[in-house]
Amino acid sequence: MPGRNAFYAQSGGPTAVINASACGVLQTARQHSDEINKVYAGREGIIGALTEDLIDTSIESDAAIAALKHTPGAAFGSYRYKLASISERRAQYERLIEVFQAHAIGYFFYNGGGDSQDTAYKVSQIGAVLDYPIVSVGIPKTVDNDLPITDCSPGFGSAAKYLATCIRETALDLSSVSRTSTKVFALEVMGRHAGWLTAACALAADHDGDALHVLLLPEIAFDEGRFLAKVEQAVVRHGHCVIAVSEGIKKLDGQFLSAGPADPFGHAQLGGVAPIITNLIGEKFGYKCHWAVADYLQRSARHIASATDVQQAYAVGRAAVEFAIAGKNAVMPAIRRLSDSPYRWDIIAAPLSEVANQEKLLPAEFISADGFGITVVARRYLAPLIAGEAYPPFEDGLPDYVRLQYRRRRVIA
Amino acid sequence: MPGRNAFYAQSGGPTAVINASACGVLQTARQHSDEINKVYAGREGIIGALTEDLIDTSIESDAAIAALKHTPGAAFGSYRYKLASISERRAQYERLIEVFQAHAIGYFFYNGGGDSQDTAYKVSQIGAVLDYPIVSVGIPKTVDNDLPITDCSPGFGSAAKYLATCIRETALDLSSVSRTSTKVFALEVMGRHAGWLTAACALAADHDGDALHVLLLPEIAFDEGRFLAKVEQAVVRHGHCVIAVSEGIKKLDGQFLSAGPADPFGHAQLGGVAPIITNLIGEKFGYKCHWAVADYLQRSARHIASATDVQQAYAVGRAAVEFAIAGKNAVMPAIRRLSDSPYRWDIIAAPLSEVANQEKLLPAEFISADGFGITVVARRYLAPLIAGEAYPPFEDGLPDYVRLQYRRRRVIA
Repeated sequence: MPGRNAFYAQSGGPTAVINASACGVLQTARQHSDEINKVYAGREGIIGALTEDLIDTSIESDAAIAALKHTPGAAFGSYRYKLASISERRAQYERLIEVFQAHAIGYFFYNGGGDSQDTAYKVSQIGAVLDYPIVSVGIPKTVDNDLPITDCSPGFGSAAKYLATCIRETALDLSSVSRTSTKVFALEVMGRHAGWLTAACALAADHDGDALHVLLLPEIAFDEGRFLAKVEQAVVRHGHCVIAVSEGIKKLDGQFLSAGPADPFGHAQLGGVAPIITNLIGEKFGYKCHWAVADYLQRSARHIASATDVQQAYAVGRAAVEFAIAGKNAVMPAIRRLSDSPYRWDIIAAPLSEVANQEKLLPAEFISADGFGITVVARRYLAPLIAGEAYPPFEDGLPDYVRLQYRRRRVIA
Repeated sequence: MPGRNAFYAQSGGPTAVINASACGVLQTARQHSDEINKVYAGREGIIGALTEDLIDTSIESDAAIAALKHTPGAAFGSYRYKLASISERRAQYERLIEVFQAHAIGYFFYNGGGDSQDTAYKVSQIGAVLDYPIVSVGIPKTVDNDLPITDCSPGFGSAAKYLATCIRETALDLSSVSRTSTKVFALEVMGRHAGWLTAACALAADHDGDALHVLLLPEIAFDEGRFLAKVEQAVVRHGHCVIAVSEGIKKLDGQFLSAGPADPFGHAQLGGVAPIITNLIGEKFGYKCHWAVADYLQRSARHIASATDVQQAYAVGRAAVEFAIAGKNAVMPAIRRLSDSPYRWDIIAAPLSEVANQEKLLPAEFISADGFGITVVARRYLAPLIAGEAYPPFEDGLPDYVRLQYRRRRVIA
């Protein structure tokens, strides 16, 4: 008798390595065909299950599945959709069960950030509350690195490596021209509430006085006067000033410096804070400023992924399947750090109940006393996460990313 | 009797490979120590000569000089400063001669774009007009790719490769979420007047319907209605729309869409046009949009340099020294294309008089009929320029770029 089928889906913002986790899931499932028959991927996360929009991954070649490991984006589509609880909206869970039953799905894998772990957690309760036997395992993913328990979140290390590289490179450019032209460069970085990516930009410095000179973290309220004084000090000392600014910085009154219209989750769309802060600098000191906004570039930069991150993304995908086969319901594979240098880690099972809807901000001991930099402790934490290169194959000068066949599987309607 | 000394300087915006040209100059000069004794690098271009701010490159190790080949930025500092003509400002040339004489400088190498070739050309006239024997050779460099005669300008291919990679990667990200969230992504690209870099973004597509979907070139006046219709068409057809927009696009009345304060050359500082055009889209269609501004990232992205570009940057540096030794005054090594595929090229001597102050825009036959794309001819031209990878060495997860010793040499005052 063949094993039951599995459902796998991706949720939230894509990363450079979320497909490496998919690769880990799919390759490991293929190695355990006694326990897992087929893996159906949901299109656009849980929506794929609710609408019976399923992709039969079994028809994809081994080579295509392997190539997911070096392909950015979310190969099966992604969506932020938060399930209500079973008691609030029982009908939605009955629909899930209808689809799961129709496709003999006994394993549920959900790959995403905090909201997604909440979804995985709610699905894990279906067995106990609605009597449909399913094993639900969350798989961590977020460039924001704000998931609790796990040492880091897959996706973060690659974005961090990209950003620190950009800072190191643009600082060389800026310092070439700063004596006579542009004196300030600001790079706007993702991270609505948690400053992990902004902090990682500081890894660019390896000599005293090197860029990065000023970090603006979302954890610290933006104080215009202190900020401008810090910038002036850097320009006087080093001739130029490189700044990393989180899209999520807030004024002393708690308002975002830059906020656009809200998304369906009630989150305001952020972006465009770099020109705001460089305008302040230009007005105050007359320095010529340049600014860049990395936006999607930072979360899709697979061309400069961290080898450590790719390895971990794959490993949590593999572990998710292993946990599921072992019958561990309501868990998420979490990375546990065993040592900083050399960086050693293994994978443990974190209870989804403790992971869902938590947000891990930068701890106070990672932030320098003046709030504009990071500490030695932070550097020790961050450094191994960007280690190692894992270049994708190139063809005709560009990364060669895979395109799947996407055969849909529908039986209900 | 040792040969005369040489002066080398860098001018205009740095690129990912201008130091590869410096490496070509310095290594080739070292191989011709009979003809060239020492190379003094001017700090910040011609200003280094005028102020006798010279760096003695002879004390730098062979390893450090070799490492310039993989280090972005302008290692000797860069500045845009345009010399007046000899007849207008003779005293400035007499000062140059004073410095050249004090340091026994008989060769002048000037590495930059159109303005810089003008400087090299003016210096090349010193022998005839002011009787100081000097051989002046320009070395091409500009991410804008707008120098005439040469098939391409070193610096362009690497920026183009970076941008096309970003488009390919962000398009995968966007298409993952576009059914339910962001539908449009716009990347703002450098190129004040010439759309070469924006055009190169189109290389990202290798299947029908692939991003890039819409280019906004500075050569084509921005027509809001036609642009919005084109974006809507892409969203309807492909579910999403990826746009590359030149910082230099102008309205039908000839005004830049986005212009800040002017720099010392009277050029307005541009930047921030991506949010302007995505706002138009959001207002018209209600599509959620994201945007990024690459700014210095694109011209310093040595981590994903084109191997072809690095090779050519080095080759023009080497050829400059060989031309100088052969007594060829007032020339610039130019790349001549011998065939498209396989891409074969050699180097010829272009007269500086024909290079200086010229701006090569995208030819009409490179632009598609509707103005929003490129033609097959353009693709054939662009494709080989981004070919090949030339990764820098990495240490601790980041590119390992060289830091010179910068020993200054001053004898006059």
